[in-house]
Amino acid sequence: MNIKKILITKQGRKFYAKDLSQDLHTQYGFIKKEDLKKAKEGDLLKSNTNREFYIFNPQFIDLYRKIKRDAQIIPLKDIGFIIAETGINKSSKVLDAGSGSGALACFLAATAKEVITYEIREDFIEIVKSNIEFLGLKNVKIKNIDIYQKIDDKNIDVVILDLPEPWKAIENCSKALKAGGFLVSYSPSIPQIADFVNAIRKNEDFVYLKTLEVTEREWEVEDRKVRPKSKGLGHSGFLSFARKVK
Amino acid sequence: MNIKKILITKQGRKFYAKDLSQDLHTQYGFIKKEDLKKAKEGDLLKSNTNREFYIFNPQFIDLYRKIKRDAQIIPLKDIGFIIAETGINKSSKVLDAGSGSGALACFLAATAKEVITYEIREDFIEIVKSNIEFLGLKNVKIKNIDIYQKIDDKNIDVVILDLPEPWKAIENCSKALKAGGFLVSYSPSIPQIADFVNAIRKNEDFVYLKTLEVTEREWEVEDRKVRPKSKGLGHSGFLSFARKVK
Amino acid sequence: MNIKKILITKQGRKFYAKDLSQDLHTQYGFIKKEDLKKAKEGDLLKSNTNREFYIFNPQFIDLYRKIKRDAQIIPLKDIGFIIAETGINKSSKVLDAGSGSGALACFLAATAKEVITYEIREDFIEIVKSNIEFLGLKNVKIKNIDIYQKIDDKNIDVVILDLPEPWKAIENCSKALKAGGFLVSYSPSIPQIADFVNAIRKNEDFVYLKTLEVTEREWEVEDRKVRPKSKGLGHSGFLSFARKVK
Amino acid sequence: MNIKKILITKQGRKFYAKDLSQDLHTQYGFIKKEDLKKAKEGDLLKSNTNREFYIFNPQFIDLYRKIKRDAQIIPLKDIGFIIAETGINKSSKVLDAGSGSGALACFLAATAKEVITYEIREDFIEIVKSNIEFLGLKNVKIKNIDIYQKIDDKNIDVVILDLPEPWKAIENCSKALKAGGFLVSYSPSIPQIADFVNAIRKNEDFVYLKTLEVTEREWEVEDRKVRPKSKGLGHSGFLSFARKVK
Repeated sequence: MNIKKILITKQGRKFYAKDLSQDLHTQYGFIKKEDLKKAKEGDLLKSNTNREFYIFNPQFIDLYRKIKRDAQIIPLKDIGFIIAETGINKSSKVLDAGSGSGALACFLAATAKEVITYEIREDFIEIVKSNIEFLGLKNVKIKNIDIYQKIDDKNIDVVILDLPEPWKAIENCSKALKAGGFLVSYSPSIPQIADFVNAIRKNEDFVYLKTLEVTEREWEVEDRKVRPKSKGLGHSGFLSFARKVK
Repeated sequence: MNIKKILITKQGRKFYAKDLSQDLHTQYGFIKKEDLKKAKEGDLLKSNTNREFYIFNPQFIDLYRKIKRDAQIIPLKDIGFIIAETGINKSSKVLDAGSGSGALACFLAATAKEVITYEIREDFIEIVKSNIEFLGLKNVKIKNIDIYQKIDDKNIDVVILDLPEPWKAIENCSKALKAGGFLVSYSPSIPQIADFVNAIRKNEDFVYLKTLEVTEREWEVEDRKVRPKSKGLGHSGFLSFARKVK
Repeated sequence: MNIKKILITKQGRKFYAKDLSQDLHTQYGFIKKEDLKKAKEGDLLKSNTNREFYIFNPQFIDLYRKIKRDAQIIPLKDIGFIIAETGINKSSKVLDAGSGSGALACFLAATAKEVITYEIREDFIEIVKSNIEFLGLKNVKIKNIDIYQKIDDKNIDVVILDLPEPWKAIENCSKALKAGGFLVSYSPSIPQIADFVNAIRKNEDFVYLKTLEVTEREWEVEDRKVRPKSKGLGHSGFLSFARKVK
Repeated sequence: MNIKKILITKQGRKFYAKDLSQDLHTQYGFIKKEDLKKAKEGDLLKSNTNREFYIFNPQFIDLYRKIKRDAQIIPLKDIGFIIAETGINKSSKVLDAGSGSGALACFLAATAKEVITYEIREDFIEIVKSNIEFLGLKNVKIKNIDIYQKIDDKNIDVVILDLPEPWKAIENCSKALKAGGFLVSYSPSIPQIADFVNAIRKNEDFVYLKTLEVTEREWEVEDRKVRPKSKGLGHSGFLSFARKVK
């Protein structure tokens, strides 16, 4: 069942109302179904313990943040960077592999014209389907195909790989991409990146562009306490970019 | 005159052909107009000095990278992060101020349904217009209005500020945003960020979400030379995010 | 009682033997006192559960890592940077305030000729004394003096401040430092740094040098898993450097 | 000829007077030899164009920053980190290879009891000698020996490698180090680090501790302009630490 309303406290704590015919229980007391039903966007509701909540309709990003994540997913900072660097837009045709939980495919579906996502594990495909349905997306095609073996799509603008051995997919990606299209590979470890980049450099169909790491560092900002947060940066993965030219 | 074709060398050096009825001169010799005209995407052309170039049609990002930049523009890494964090998508209505050269508005126009951009300087407005035309965008509205004074738009999903004193626009942004909409501020310096965040915290209409810096660190990857590039990270700005709730 | 021996497993887990006339109990079983007593440096000992431990005499850094830390202490990365940037060496006379647990003073005492440490809280002074004794240091002088009020030392090479309001100590530091000496301030938050630097810039006795953050990012390196650790960078503080010239 | 005096402008520009019997020429005019000779530390001198300079005696770090650098040298941030992490101090016996210009050996000589530096290239050895003399150091021994072939020193506290193939020196380092001593390797590239760490992990004499990168990020701090400098981080190298246990 889908999320109908978002409730948020002044401190930024979010709650998700899926069924407006039932009271919404939170750690700060419950909000009555009558209040939920008649509330308009931006209204202030109160729980039985008098705690205040603002209510509004979920935006795409609210729903996206609630998708199922059985596999490790690529973080938003990296998705954003890929969109910006390759210019994925409303007329783009994008392909990704492997789907995992489908997070990347689902995010890109909200931005691009069409998304095709390749995955070999059937359990993951079930999660992707459920996430697509949850988000109400109409432009994602799932293919239960091993991208190391073949790609049966053509004329793709951007292919994004999140695979253990991305260099094994380069030949197939070349056939799928249009001239001028981008091939992006996302990997957590340096040896994967190095093997991918060295294979791309040797491949006549591609021009290698660059490899980089995107980091997001959060700051505390409150009166005179203005400083990087102590919890730290972490690491997700490195991104490599190449361009199909032939 | 618009860019018709991109030519790229195997080393990634790009050249832009605007007029296919003329030879294209590069530092590696010139390519004959006859070759330019009959070339299909992915063809390999040769200059008079026998240098090789692949040719393809420009994608959106190729054109975007060639827009006029008279004001300092927000880098792609930050644009991507804003898109990812707020979930800007094909049905989003977005507003930004000040336009500057219009880079942010133009990039977002390729992703969002509608973009409105506020700018007080008429010389900048001329640049924005020229960039919109260059990119062939149909969904950007430019307003010569001081956002500190007023916003005459409503029901906006995301407002993005790139202003010297963003806290002066908070009240007006509140009126323009829908409940659940995002307010983003981009500033190079910490005191600006601190003043903006402290003002947001005091404003009942908003829930403050977070402040962060996005960094992009490039790596060299060639055989056993696998290391961060020595040229360094640089700094563009910090991003603060808040959510309109009332 | 002092640490007499270090025992370390092949996995890098360390244990500290203080009393060689007693068995050493660890989570991996216990080592017999007879074995502890007769062991020479580099010997391999076994616990009653047959777990292996190497044994050696503690170095300065082993003891330093075990000092009492009732106040937040400045991390080693920042101590190292201060030593390197100001060139603290065997003939240096160094002063720091406030002492806190005395970590900085104790580390510098192992490097410099003489260290004087100012602290107003008597409970902290007790900890500093205990740490000095634990490390067997002979060249640290503790003064129960408020550095905002006075410094009664002269001819200092480097003064290091770890204070909530370091700008209040600038005048006194000027009197204590020799011409050419360094003033260093360590603060977690940007507004403290900004107030300190702006005060230094106005002070005729000093030339402002620079402000920076030192970060230490750990990597996993094991076969093909070569990547930044996911736990992240964290934040300790910023360092500002100035030079006494008059 | 050695540096006798440092002159510094209020803006932090430094000049070095080597010969007090001659006028000192700078881009801001010249300072008369009579003024140089009679000046006391902290005095304010004026050039013939009325520009002001403070004068003081050079500290160790002033001289260190002027040593000859024919080979790429390890930056101060990394030297500081090594000192802090391994606790190099006045009673330490330290060995490094290869010397290069001798920068590391010279810095450590000011901190440690004794430094031994191995170098195979005779042209580098001449530079090291000249730097040792320039700094007036008495406790550095230079050996024209290939560390991959042998080390004829014993009982070393810390060995630091700055070599193209550091894994080839591990066996010899083991013989040179005392039980509990540290082995540090500094390399710019990840494959070097990975090969070194994997070799250390297989070596029974060592416990592997950690690998990390130290970065120094400078900030601009002037009134409301408080932000990371735009020039960027750069990259020097990664540091790996192991401990001799057997």
